[in-house]
Amino acid sequence: MQSTTDPHILRHLGIHRVLEPQGALPQPAWKLDNTPVALATETLINVQKLHIDSASFTQIANVCERDTERMKIHMMDIVKTRGKMHNPVTGSGGVLIGTVEQLDETFVEKHHLTRGDTIVSLTSLSWLPLYLNDIKHIYLGRSEVEVEGKAILFRSNPLTKLPGDLPQSLVVAALDVAGAPSRVAALARQGQRVTVLGAGGTAGLLTLCALRQHLGSNGLIIAIEYSEQALLDIASLGVADILIQADATRPLELLEQVRKNYVGHDYLADLTINVVNVPNTEFATILLTRPDGRILFFSMATSFTVAALGAEGMGRQVEMHIGNGYMPDHGEVALQLLRDNPTLCAIFVKRFGS
Amino acid sequence: MQSTTDPHILRHLGIHRVLEPQGALPQPAWKLDNTPVALATETLINVQKLHIDSASFTQIANVCERDTERMKIHMMDIVKTRGKMHNPVTGSGGVLIGTVEQLDETFVEKHHLTRGDTIVSLTSLSWLPLYLNDIKHIYLGRSEVEVEGKAILFRSNPLTKLPGDLPQSLVVAALDVAGAPSRVAALARQGQRVTVLGAGGTAGLLTLCALRQHLGSNGLIIAIEYSEQALLDIASLGVADILIQADATRPLELLEQVRKNYVGHDYLADLTINVVNVPNTEFATILLTRPDGRILFFSMATSFTVAALGAEGMGRQVEMHIGNGYMPDHGEVALQLLRDNPTLCAIFVKRFGS
Repeated sequence: MQSTTDPHILRHLGIHRVLEPQGALPQPAWKLDNTPVALATETLINVQKLHIDSASFTQIANVCERDTERMKIHMMDIVKTRGKMHNPVTGSGGVLIGTVEQLDETFVEKHHLTRGDTIVSLTSLSWLPLYLNDIKHIYLGRSEVEVEGKAILFRSNPLTKLPGDLPQSLVVAALDVAGAPSRVAALARQGQRVTVLGAGGTAGLLTLCALRQHLGSNGLIIAIEYSEQALLDIASLGVADILIQADATRPLELLEQVRKNYVGHDYLADLTINVVNVPNTEFATILLTRPDGRILFFSMATSFTVAALGAEGMGRQVEMHIGNGYMPDHGEVALQLLRDNPTLCAIFVKRFGS
Repeated sequence: MQSTTDPHILRHLGIHRVLEPQGALPQPAWKLDNTPVALATETLINVQKLHIDSASFTQIANVCERDTERMKIHMMDIVKTRGKMHNPVTGSGGVLIGTVEQLDETFVEKHHLTRGDTIVSLTSLSWLPLYLNDIKHIYLGRSEVEVEGKAILFRSNPLTKLPGDLPQSLVVAALDVAGAPSRVAALARQGQRVTVLGAGGTAGLLTLCALRQHLGSNGLIIAIEYSEQALLDIASLGVADILIQADATRPLELLEQVRKNYVGHDYLADLTINVVNVPNTEFATILLTRPDGRILFFSMATSFTVAALGAEGMGRQVEMHIGNGYMPDHGEVALQLLRDNPTLCAIFVKRFGS
């Protein structure tokens, strides 16, 4: 880990590449200098693929009527205007896959890298200077873009080496949500009752598997999911104790569902993980958690004020955490879960190809 | 504490009073039944004063051009339309002061109340059925409204008895932000380095005093505040070790300020409390905290996504908490701080009258 009081921290965050507005950090900045040459403290990546954030990709596809030629022009234009693949409408980015071309020794040592290694950025594309020569192909089905280009990584930006033993599409899908299982592993305690809302999504499935490893045999996992198909996937994993099909945006009905499925028991969770991908699920999450329990909101659709005022209004002192996607394991927990669990791996192959 | 799996929880939250839309909880609901008669499990309050949330009061004052007669009509209209004092523009409420008129025995026992006791609601007015006969007076300077009316409290709604030994205006001001010092007291550990952003506000001052009590003599408190006048108040308290005047919306300049004031030391906090009342302070908060430290965001201006993506982009695993205003002490920690600290009390009198 870097020194906690690093005098060069601002440079390591990349503020020397910010063109507009002055004094901003690279992510909130409007425009970065994307000159494709590594300065001191920078690492240059030869970029082969962009995995565009789903919200951003959908927005671009819609505005270009799913015409990939128009989408190419639109994306080239964003990168030219902003010096990064940072969709100005959705505010989101994605991740890149590429090979290490020019090395910053300190960075490379920290990540055990050598020239030519294939890496996945764990920082959003909205943070990284990107220069594109060409967009070669757009895969509409999986938000993927084949490119010829260069990107700059700063010393503070997390990344991971692409492992050789897992298909690339699975690795990228797992790394995208790797913070959830990793953080859950740090929060869950032996013997706890844990509820997962949105348990059938990518993050949810990884979270369920991580929980099973950490709760021990007397722990209890309640999996709540809206989609019937995703519920079948959860069932096939065999890691959840109770499966409930319900809509987390309708807290009162959800509560009745949980009661019906779990009659006569205390259904309130010691820990509740919210990985739902739609808004308005804060009340349900709080209602399903013990007043002295903990909640981990890992959904980007979470509203800070609704959560804070909801808990206050219901008189619940519950400790609520903001899901932070970065963990020092750089996604290793999530990848190891895929290696350890062939059924999980098969579900990922079914969803993301191999 | 109520049973953790209470079969009557929905009634105790007050859903039987929701008129529109069906199936909503009282706070997000558009309209409540405000019939001023207590049903089973309800407590009826004879309301004397409303302390309107500052955002709501300002909005109403502006739209009525600070004409108190027009403001009266506007407020009566909101209460008639929604059955509660829930400003449809700002989405916020406030608190009420009143006396207990009709008792629900279980509720009353839990709070050690008797008929005639004066209480302050700790639930937002946006949650509580309110019926107004009349608005007698509006105090423009302090968001206060003298009324003649009735309110319903449900069993889940927190409240506190008005203590006899402190001026009412101070009690209401302190209770409004009481969650911050109370939660800080639960999070802070002996000997830690703690930074408070927005340290000169009401919540900030209470937080500083709570921290001093809990950190012990080798703990360190860094107080950051934008307003010069508020900094003088912090200085007069004598509880912060380092005082810094800076703007938390400008993270890079703030970092330089902290360094300049604290040369040669590790300035990163084990725990950072954000009680700033403006948006865009998430990056500064994360940058001032140890990568393995904790952050408590107590500002309603916090953006969930900015905090989550900011930490990820900077590669900081920091544990981030959503400030939850409810604590089971029902504001007692905050009130005791006022009693224990005459200087703090004097600052409150200066700000809120006595």
